[in-house]
Amino acid sequence: MGYVPALVDGTTVVSDSYAILLYLEEKYPQHALLPQDLVRKSINYQAASIVSSSIQPLQNMVLVNYIGEIVSPDEKLPWAQYHIGKGFVALEILLANYAGKYATGDEIYLADLYLAPQLDNAINRFKLDMTAFPLLLKLNKTYNETPSFQQILAETQQQHTDKSAFDFIKLQEA
Amino acid sequence: MGYVPALVDGTTVVSDSYAILLYLEEKYPQHALLPQDLVRKSINYQAASIVSSSIQPLQNMVLVNYIGEIVSPDEKLPWAQYHIGKGFVALEILLANYAGKYATGDEIYLADLYLAPQLDNAINRFKLDMTAFPLLLKLNKTYNETPSFQQILAETQQQHTDKSAFDFIKLQEA
Repeated sequence: MGYVPALVDGTTVVSDSYAILLYLEEKYPQHALLPQDLVRKSINYQAASIVSSSIQPLQNMVLVNYIGEIVSPDEKLPWAQYHIGKGFVALEILLANYAGKYATGDEIYLADLYLAPQLDNAINRFKLDMTAFPLLLKLNKTYNETPSFQQILAETQQQHTDKSAFDFIKLQEA
Repeated sequence: MGYVPALVDGTTVVSDSYAILLYLEEKYPQHALLPQDLVRKSINYQAASIVSSSIQPLQNMVLVNYIGEIVSPDEKLPWAQYHIGKGFVALEILLANYAGKYATGDEIYLADLYLAPQLDNAINRFKLDMTAFPLLLKLNKTYNETPSFQQILAETQQQHTDKSAFDFIKLQEA
């Protein structure tokens, strides 16, 4: 689409971060991104989809800047906050019964790779009031205290959300 | 998110059509939605993601109506056409080397479940000029000639895109 990451694995090119992560999961099962349990796995799929389909497309900077131009610059922040908040309501409910140290238990899984950069983006770039999202706020704190996330979050604070999840994999494999 | 389908399977509730389809794929492997070959599988993931993350969120009627209100009613159609067209450019290239009778070969897979309603939507609701997308146009013709798609497409021409893919599963299993 012109602005998503691409993975080149031998002669295979996979674009779109969700597709990349699912591809890596099957090609390199030694770095499991999904839990074995099917229900917990589906929680990861749902969390990833909420971020990638319901939040990210509506708060990416191309669209936010467009809203700023056609409506008003003052509308950019409320626009982004509204769409992120709507997704966060769903995530807070979705993860309530599954979260442990991380989003879906005590291991880092797919959901965390989407949540860490999205939370950072919401809090630091879009100044979202997190009062209604205590679980997500706790997860954000954990990510910021987890070394493998710290480096990525520091590097990508000004970058595209999708990229961070992908960089995490590279870091884990390094 | 308030407007996506939900699957209730015993005590498990899965929301979001992408998560539902991936859940069904693993829970009921007798109805394979993905090919065995990992590269071809990744083409399916990518096609599904393009529709669900890059097209659908930007052309759903809530957003299109919002654009109509804040900009102009005349902007609704160009807005939808622009975002669908951008995704179709990517899909036309993505599927070029993989399409057979259907999107990624001669069997119906995940990509088709996303493409059939999206193509119908683009052509019948948003009157998109398909001249630049000969492969997608051919696939649309095939879907309209495939009985299991015909019923769904007829039923959902006025409905949410995501819903059609999900109904297809129910129909297959009926």
